[in-house]
Parts: sequence; structure tokens; C-alpha cells
Amino acid sequence: MTQYQEALAGHITAEMEAVAKKEFLPAETIRSEIAAGRLVIPANTVHLRKGLDPVGIGSAVTCKINANLGNSALAGDLDRELEKVRCAVRFGADTVMDLSTGPDIDRLRQNVIDNVRVPVGTVPLYQVCEQLDDILDMTPRHFLDAVEHQARQGVDYMTIHAALLRRHIPLIDSRVTGIVSRGGSLIAKWMAAHKEENPFYTHFGELCEIMGRYDVTWSLGDGLRPGCLADASDAAQFGELSVMGELCRRAHEAGNQAMIEGPGHVPLDQIESNMARQIKECDGAPFYVLGPLVTDCAPGYDHITGAIGGAMAAWHGAAMLCYVTPKEHLGLPNLNDVREGVIAFKIAAHSADIARHRPGARDRDDAISRARNDFDWPRQFNLALDCDRAIEYYKEARGMSPDDPLPACSENFCTMCGPKFCAMKTTAELKMLRKKNGD
Amino acid sequence: MTQYQEALAGHITAEMEAVAKKEFLPAETIRSEIAAGRLVIPANTVHLRKGLDPVGIGSAVTCKINANLGNSALAGDLDRELEKVRCAVRFGADTVMDLSTGPDIDRLRQNVIDNVRVPVGTVPLYQVCEQLDDILDMTPRHFLDAVEHQARQGVDYMTIHAALLRRHIPLIDSRVTGIVSRGGSLIAKWMAAHKEENPFYTHFGELCEIMGRYDVTWSLGDGLRPGCLADASDAAQFGELSVMGELCRRAHEAGNQAMIEGPGHVPLDQIESNMARQIKECDGAPFYVLGPLVTDCAPGYDHITGAIGGAMAAWHGAAMLCYVTPKEHLGLPNLNDVREGVIAFKIAAHSADIARHRPGARDRDDAISRARNDFDWPRQFNLALDCDRAIEYYKEARGMSPDDPLPACSENFCTMCGPKFCAMKTTAELKMLRKKNGD
Repeated sequence: MTQYQEALAGHITAEMEAVAKKEFLPAETIRSEIAAGRLVIPANTVHLRKGLDPVGIGSAVTCKINANLGNSALAGDLDRELEKVRCAVRFGADTVMDLSTGPDIDRLRQNVIDNVRVPVGTVPLYQVCEQLDDILDMTPRHFLDAVEHQARQGVDYMTIHAALLRRHIPLIDSRVTGIVSRGGSLIAKWMAAHKEENPFYTHFGELCEIMGRYDVTWSLGDGLRPGCLADASDAAQFGELSVMGELCRRAHEAGNQAMIEGPGHVPLDQIESNMARQIKECDGAPFYVLGPLVTDCAPGYDHITGAIGGAMAAWHGAAMLCYVTPKEHLGLPNLNDVREGVIAFKIAAHSADIARHRPGARDRDDAISRARNDFDWPRQFNLALDCDRAIEYYKEARGMSPDDPLPACSENFCTMCGPKFCAMKTTAELKMLRKKNGD
Repeated sequence: MTQYQEALAGHITAEMEAVAKKEFLPAETIRSEIAAGRLVIPANTVHLRKGLDPVGIGSAVTCKINANLGNSALAGDLDRELEKVRCAVRFGADTVMDLSTGPDIDRLRQNVIDNVRVPVGTVPLYQVCEQLDDILDMTPRHFLDAVEHQARQGVDYMTIHAALLRRHIPLIDSRVTGIVSRGGSLIAKWMAAHKEENPFYTHFGELCEIMGRYDVTWSLGDGLRPGCLADASDAAQFGELSVMGELCRRAHEAGNQAMIEGPGHVPLDQIESNMARQIKECDGAPFYVLGPLVTDCAPGYDHITGAIGGAMAAWHGAAMLCYVTPKEHLGLPNLNDVREGVIAFKIAAHSADIARHRPGARDRDDAISRARNDFDWPRQFNLALDCDRAIEYYKEARGMSPDDPLPACSENFCTMCGPKFCAMKTTAELKMLRKKNGD
């Protein structure tokens, strides 16, 4: 039985218990949210047996972040990609997607699953495309076999672009950037060439059957997500979203867990309405958004454009944010890009958790602020989202070498202002003065 | 006459004309916004004669960003600080503040004013504090002289913490981080020690007289801005804000231009209400916010926490964002930190301009998106907010050395996905297929 079926039957599984504990929520809340289709625990039974640490994704729990990794035909070997995966998890990625499209795709995926305890997602179409000379040669059987193969390997959730239908394709004609989803563009081309409906849509029942056997969670891919601000919230995007709602209900009827992927590039003032529309169309199923990026003209800094949009999206209900790295639109991320992307999106997710008044969400902020007020540097570093980076910058600003030990915790001013201009030091003196005066 | 007085008299000055041209707005709109107190052009007549390029700050025009620079007792020499100033302006800072508190403070300020064409702001109290052994020795005369001296040098706007009154001081007792404004903490200590009211408040009329003579714009400093999420939107912050409204009206009565400084650290869900309250209390005077930071626990990444809050603030009416660099809370920024901070806040301001549907705000985004769709790499780089960084990352991802020339503009796929998985390439093929099919 899948987590969804267990929840419907009124059972609280060990995975629901584990999620409840991490989220400081009653296990019954987790169960009822899963039963309502508003929360998923992507936990392939194969990966569970290998030690998966269950993660809950839904609007009732803290916002999660995903890191995309994997090689391409042009870059990335196995060891280097695994190092990136470990880096992403170390800095706080709640799930990772292996989006490899290059050589040795099968071995890399198995290594990722065997080496991380967080849920692993994939886009099975990439493997089919990699293994065929031409995507147009794909048959539905190729795809079903790839899904079954990856499910057996232990993949916890799969992005499948089943909601992009033939009738949507003409809607891209007026777009600036057409289709920017790799999976979306490939399946659209297949449909146009074969003059047939999307095979993932026509074979949805068979796919549900495979997903259910391993409890793989659907991540209904948004093949028509906008690739620039000009294309945001258009007929193509919302046409596909409506079909996603239909497929989400069918997945639930088949006993599967499902989440919905979302944009992309969206102006700041359209994010709230995009979230509201998805919640309505898909009955509150977990929304998993990419960014969204709030401007198109900052290549090299898209982790920041995405963190701005991601914070807004998460505040208004997104359940998981897919990170974007500084290399977005330019190339594949290196190790430091992965770190920067993960932390940028941890910030976005965390600031939204605070804004949503999640239980305990601000505790860490209050603790670091107290440490700051107390000039307790070691405690500030310990509470930082990226402790090593904070120490590195602190030392650099003081002209220390990276290997120097941290100074003793006795200085009651910081390097920004020096002793004479330290507001916190001055405030401490003010308090003493007031005490003396009996104010 | 100040810009405000000219506007009230119905005159359109050369500076108003220049601002109107840059903002694609009628000069009469600029004049009437200035007359209403909703827009300022910080343009000291001395700096104007030296070639200042006028900048309009107000909610009717594009959102501006300020970069803070200057040395401290612990770090920074003149040449290095000037290099940072040039870097900030090069990457798009609309104004700079020289917040030096270290040695040679006068020469550095004069050099900044003489070397940049953007408006320059200062906090005159720092100079007084630097020149006295103890801030408690300060007399109102010391301060008035410092303001006059800096006005004569050509400073375009000055932060003065005149709205922090004695009655506000006890309100900080319940705070986690007390007073985090340097100027605010120093003047509060002075008031507590002398048991006197804030001298900047009691001498406000004399200050207005000096400001008016050079048309220095008030930047009413928020000495009680929250220094952490826990202290946001508290009685201290809003008590001071109410006095800022009073002083803003008094500045206008004296013929001065005025803007209002704002927080600081504010949770995402309190930003909109903070903006609305400021607009109400201060009759829509330009709001100049620092960040705000939406989480406290990301030292090393506060340019990102600040860009998230800044985008929200600007969307809801902030007229200027003060940047925050990755070194915030850790030390003074180096050259690269200045660049990162400026670009992060350009992104925030620009995304808010788009969300506010400013005339032409999205043109650059649409142009870069078209270039992306056309695989026109040189044009993409030219349109990027940080062209050099985009090229650097692009080359790095391709394994090129920094000195290699850019490849010819012929490849119709990018380094992220490689040729087989390029969505834009696939979409182009899809379009050809549909044309062939007569779809």
C-alpha cells in the first residue's frame, strides 16, 4: 500500500510518524493531510529499505527545497556529480533530482540512491532519449519500461510531462521563448511528428499501476512553464495546469501520491495569483515550483532572482522550491554554485516559514540575534545557515588567514564598525547609564 | 531656492527635466510629485556645480538603490574605498553613502564627492564622534558645524537621527537587540547621560536652515530600526516613525526636501504593512529602506536575505533600497562584496519596477529573452545586469580560460543541456515539423 492508501485507510505509518516528529506536528495531522492529497512523502519502498529518511512535502509542513544535479553530454563525471549531491544535502537540500542526460546515466542514478538518505527524483524521459538515437523512435513501451526500471532502482518521485496535450501546442506560437522544459519540448515534438496524443497521458493508467507498486510519487511536470516574464500566466501554462488537476485526481483514484510542478519565470505581482490558481485547480496538491525567477536579465545571479520569487511562492503556499544556481542559463553548476543555490533557497524557504508562522520557525533567528547582541561569535557561527562561509568572511574581513583559530570570545564590538561606533556596545553603555540614573 | 521650493512655485528646474527624461515621464509629473513631498532630487548646489547627474527618488519613479561605503577604524584606506565607490557606481548604484568612521574622514568624503556624479549621502554625526574623544562631549554647536561643513563640501543628503526622542528609549528594554543604528545608539546614550532631549530634534529649525541653503535633502534616520525579526514592528520603531512624520512636515514647511529611512530586519509578512504605515504617517514621503532582511540566520548571504525583503518593500512602495553586502554582520565589504551587493539590489529594485508596471520596465527582460531564444549569446551578455560575470561563468562552464575569446555565435544549444536535450533547439524543430504538417 502507498502512503496515500494507508492514510485513506486511517493508518499512521512509520514514515508519517517520522515526518510528524521532524515537523513538530501530530502524526494524525500528517495522515489527514496525506489523505486529503495535500501532502506527500516521496518514499519508494526500495529506497526506504536502503535507509531513506522520510520527508513530508505539503503546505501544512515546512517548505522544502530540491537541488537538481546530474551530468550532461558536455560535462560531469560520476565522482564529481556525487560530490555535488553530497554538498547539496550537507547544506540543506531536502530532496535531490538526478537530471543526468550524459553517459553512464544508470550507474550514476544508482549511486545517488544508494548514497543519500533524502528522496531522489528523476525525469525518466531523459534516459529514454539518451538510449535512443532519436526521440521520435520512442514507443510507449520504451517509456513504461524506463519508469519501471527506475522505480526498481528506488527513485522516490518522477517528473512526467503527461498534462501537455496536442491542443496546447498551438498556444506556444505567440510566446517569446516557446517551450523551455526539456521533457516538454521532446514530448511536444514527438506528438507533432506522430500526430498522436501525449503517450504519457494515454498510458496514464499503466503508469499509475507501476508508480503504485513501488509508491513512487508523481511529480506532474509542467512542460509549458513560462521561460520568461513575457510568457508567464498565459493560455499555454494555464491550459496544461487544468489537465494537471485532472491527472492529479486520477493519480489519487489509483492510490498514488502526487505533486504538481510549477513555473518558472513569473513577475513578482503574479506569484500570489499563480499559487492560488494551482491550489484551486489541483485541490491543494503540493506545489513544487522552479524559482520562480522574477526577472530575466540577471544571468550569473539567478539564485537571487529565484530566491526572491521562491520566498514569495512559498509564503503563498508552494510546498517545495527547486533551487536555481548562479550558473542557470549559462552552464552546469560546479560545487560552489550548488552550495550558493542551496543556501539561497534555504533562505527563501525559511523566510516563508517564518512569514507563515510555522511552529518554532523563528527560534533559530531569535537565538542568533541574542548571540549577536551578546557578542557571542562562536554561537552566531554555529547558528548560521552556512557556518563555514560566515567564519571565512569574518576572518577575511579581519585580515586573518583561513587557518587562524577564531579569536577568543571577549571582544564586545564587531569588525564592521570598530569599538567607537559599535551600536550594540553603545546600547550596552546606554543601559548601564540608565540603570545608574534610575531611569 | 530648493527643488521643493521651485516645485511649489510651479517652476520646472533643469534637474527636474533631467529626471523626467531618465524616467520617461512628463517633467510636470516630476514637479508635482516634488511639490507633494513624494519625490526628492538630492542635489546639493555645490555638487551640482561639480557635475552631479540628478537622480529622482520617489514612488512615482523607478526604484533606486544606494551603496554604503567608507572605512572604519579597523579597515580601509582612501584609494581602496574610492575603488569601491567607483565599482558600486559602475554596477548600478544610484547613490552612495560615505559612512566612514575611520581616519582621514574629511579627505575621503571630498574625494568621493569630486569623483562621482551620483548623489552622495553621509551621517554627519560620525564625523563629530570621530573628532571628539567622547560623544558625550558633543554640543549642539559641534553638530551644526559638522552639518554646515559637509553641506559646503557638497553632500547631497544627510542621515540625521532627529526623531528618536527620550520617551522612546525605555521602549527598547524588551528588545532582543536594542539599538542597532550607530547614530541612534550614540544619540540615545548622549540623551541618557545629559538627561536632555535629542539635540537634533531641539535644533531642528537651525538644521533646516543650513540644509535649505545648499538644498541638502533630509534623510530622517531611523535610530530605532529593528535589528532582528523579533524586534520588528514594535512600539519603539513605530513611536519614532510617528515623530518622523512630524519632522517631515516641518522640513517641508522650511522648504527642505525630505525622505524617511526604514528597517532593517522585517519578516516577509510584515513588509507590506510597514510600507503602508510609513506612507500614511509621512504623507507618502520617499521611503528609503535598509534591506529589509527577512531572516537573521544567514550571515555571509545577507545580500540575498536583503534582496528578498527589498523586492517586497519596493513593490509595496519603497523609493530607494540601501544595499546589504555578503559581509553584513561580519565585517566591511571588499570590492567583490560591493559588486554582489549592488547587483542583488538592482535585481530587487528591477523586479519591483516590473511588478509595478513602470513604463518600459520589462523591455530589457523581453529583449534578453528573445536573445536567449535566438541563441544570440553576445546579445544576452550585453543585456545582462552584470555582463562580465555572465561571460565569466559561461566560459568556466565550458572549460574555457578567462582570456579565450567568446565562441562564434553559431551554436544553437547551450552548455546546460547539450545539443540533444536543448529545449529551445527542440522547440525550433517542433515548429518546423508543424509547419511541414500544415498544423
